[in-house]
Amino acid sequence: MVPPIITLTTDFGTGDPYVAAMKGVILSINPGALIVDISHEVRPQAIEQGSFLLAAALPYFPTGAIHVAVVDPGVGSERRGLAVATAEATFIGPDNGILSAALPDDLRAHAASPASPLPLPNGFRAVSLENERYLHRPVSSTLHGRDVFAPAAAHLSRGVRLEGLGPPLHSILALPPLRAQRQPDGSLQGRVVYIDRFGNLITDLRADDLPDAKAGAEAGEIVVEIAGQKVRGLRRAYHEGEGLIAYIGSAGYLEIALAGGSAAAALEADIATAVRLHRSR
Amino acid sequence: MVPPIITLTTDFGTGDPYVAAMKGVILSINPGALIVDISHEVRPQAIEQGSFLLAAALPYFPTGAIHVAVVDPGVGSERRGLAVATAEATFIGPDNGILSAALPDDLRAHAASPASPLPLPNGFRAVSLENERYLHRPVSSTLHGRDVFAPAAAHLSRGVRLEGLGPPLHSILALPPLRAQRQPDGSLQGRVVYIDRFGNLITDLRADDLPDAKAGAEAGEIVVEIAGQKVRGLRRAYHEGEGLIAYIGSAGYLEIALAGGSAAAALEADIATAVRLHRSR
Amino acid sequence: MVPPIITLTTDFGTGDPYVAAMKGVILSINPGALIVDISHEVRPQAIEQGSFLLAAALPYFPTGAIHVAVVDPGVGSERRGLAVATAEATFIGPDNGILSAALPDDLRAHAASPASPLPLPNGFRAVSLENERYLHRPVSSTLHGRDVFAPAAAHLSRGVRLEGLGPPLHSILALPPLRAQRQPDGSLQGRVVYIDRFGNLITDLRADDLPDAKAGAEAGEIVVEIAGQKVRGLRRAYHEGEGLIAYIGSAGYLEIALAGGSAAAALEADIATAVRLHRSR
Repeated sequence: MVPPIITLTTDFGTGDPYVAAMKGVILSINPGALIVDISHEVRPQAIEQGSFLLAAALPYFPTGAIHVAVVDPGVGSERRGLAVATAEATFIGPDNGILSAALPDDLRAHAASPASPLPLPNGFRAVSLENERYLHRPVSSTLHGRDVFAPAAAHLSRGVRLEGLGPPLHSILALPPLRAQRQPDGSLQGRVVYIDRFGNLITDLRADDLPDAKAGAEAGEIVVEIAGQKVRGLRRAYHEGEGLIAYIGSAGYLEIALAGGSAAAALEADIATAVRLHRSR
Repeated sequence: MVPPIITLTTDFGTGDPYVAAMKGVILSINPGALIVDISHEVRPQAIEQGSFLLAAALPYFPTGAIHVAVVDPGVGSERRGLAVATAEATFIGPDNGILSAALPDDLRAHAASPASPLPLPNGFRAVSLENERYLHRPVSSTLHGRDVFAPAAAHLSRGVRLEGLGPPLHSILALPPLRAQRQPDGSLQGRVVYIDRFGNLITDLRADDLPDAKAGAEAGEIVVEIAGQKVRGLRRAYHEGEGLIAYIGSAGYLEIALAGGSAAAALEADIATAVRLHRSR
Repeated sequence: MVPPIITLTTDFGTGDPYVAAMKGVILSINPGALIVDISHEVRPQAIEQGSFLLAAALPYFPTGAIHVAVVDPGVGSERRGLAVATAEATFIGPDNGILSAALPDDLRAHAASPASPLPLPNGFRAVSLENERYLHRPVSSTLHGRDVFAPAAAHLSRGVRLEGLGPPLHSILALPPLRAQRQPDGSLQGRVVYIDRFGNLITDLRADDLPDAKAGAEAGEIVVEIAGQKVRGLRRAYHEGEGLIAYIGSAGYLEIALAGGSAAAALEADIATAVRLHRSR
């Protein structure tokens, strides 16, 4: 029998007892659950970053997985707890935009930053996690990851129906999709959205934003400007360039790397650093 | 069938090969074991911190779990290796106080710091891990996590009886419980016992030390003094205050947080920083 | 039934989505695989360090485990992807030396640094991971951990034959074994090869390089020189000395530690720092 998969994405770190407590709660309810960490290193309270990480790993998990994401500055307030079911997966977390990856990009294009209520499309179901029967009692006012979201995931993984967890919702909060802005002159204006362990800068410029950009032969056509530097051409892989290189990374976004070093350190770039792409002539 | 759970709490970090070797040893003996990391980020050789982390996660794991905790500055000395069975769980680790959470607080109240021998209460059993049959040979003199404690946990998880692991013990070393001191003037004098990833300061003041402190309405009554600052009132959750806030955290202790920042950094507080709680009038 | 074990050793860190994506790919192909992290904290692109970590954990895993190791500065170049089967285990990763632990030391003694092609001994089989059927498509040019190595491991764990993954190879790249050089005067000249979380310095001097060195009684005989300091005698365990101590560590190499502190910090030592061992008289 295939074990039900529950993934975890949080800003809790792995040194503190919070993630372990979530896992204990899940396994107490469903000892057969297979728990997989996506990341617990989201910057504290960085909802968009948590949403990015979940979205980046999501396509590689089997259909039917349950994804718990908890970046939750409003824990203990009136913000709702959500479970959202789509055709591919179930998502659990606070209603603050962290679960944006549950919704299609074309719908999310109607959202404004930081997060807007969006109507659920056909085929999507959501509930507010209010049924006390499926909470871990007493419910702390500072750690719903342990007391609300972990038990909801575990009960769903055992076959509890989504609708049993609480009253239905018709809209949830979501973030706009990561997408650079096309300027009147045809250039793209974007920003750094994530920096990985290698110091590679992941931007919100997507591969399909530059459909006729080809790596290699015509590489000279593209110019990426960031932090006062110009990076010319698109490479296919790290080993193809020296110094700063631009390429379409493994998540489908334009990235800037420094061969043998950290682009983030060399450019003193951070999340939100502006990136501009245009064509040389 | 429910897989047996083995949790791990160490100061080994996750970058080095030590935790992986422990997992390999466990799975070589019992491929059906379900291993869960509690934390491997205990400060090097900080026995009390390791004990705190295990105690914080412990209540959320199923009855019958096997908890291995290794913070072990005396590895290779004459200090004993322990397995301790209670009605709820089994604990494995060095006899240096790291397994204090196995014992009830009212018994631990008789211990002095850093750790004192305490008689095992009725219903508790302990052995010294000396049966060579259940060691991973050769036994290194610097890594009993891999060679003594991991195999003991794995064999127990397969059904080996506790008594088979070595001769019985009638007392084990334990730390005093975390509990602030009531002063003659009625105030509580405590200290910071843990700092989490958010920079939240967890103290040894317990919720039941302040039974008539209520969050919200009467919040003005409580004053927490730490590092020259006064924090007034008890909040229920992070979003309820600005600047420094005090609240009962998810582990049941009074915590100090800085809304949107790190209280530890703002106060230059560390583990052992003094905390005083009294009532204003 | 015993679940197939797949271990992971990378320089990806655990904060980024790369390791999670590898796990998702594996579980999508084989939901029954048991994935164990060895380390994801290899220094970026440090092939020898990754090889060391895999070798240090390897002996503790059950026969038949599948070990995936990805430290891959040449990803997207013409370097091959490998699967190597030995009598004990299967190894998967780029052909750049990261899988050196698959080969016996006496063969590796013929390799030069950074990595040399070595003929596979009898009983060893290897293939180049070229069969498109077992890749995760589309194959990114920057993350073969997810698109090439994870799926290869998962398919093997489900029973796909090694030879099905691609054409056979007769040699693979490997690093020289870690081993200090014997000097004409009988001293050993080595170096620091790894620094652990405690700041302990692991060298390439092996226990069997000093066969008549005995800890304890005759300990005065050995002198270790490092960073201008002399460390006299071999200890058996941390608690036996004060200041800097030398001992045979849990991986079988000579290590230098500072009792109650970090030897690396105290000596300002790093990977490659020279170490000399001789006998006093």
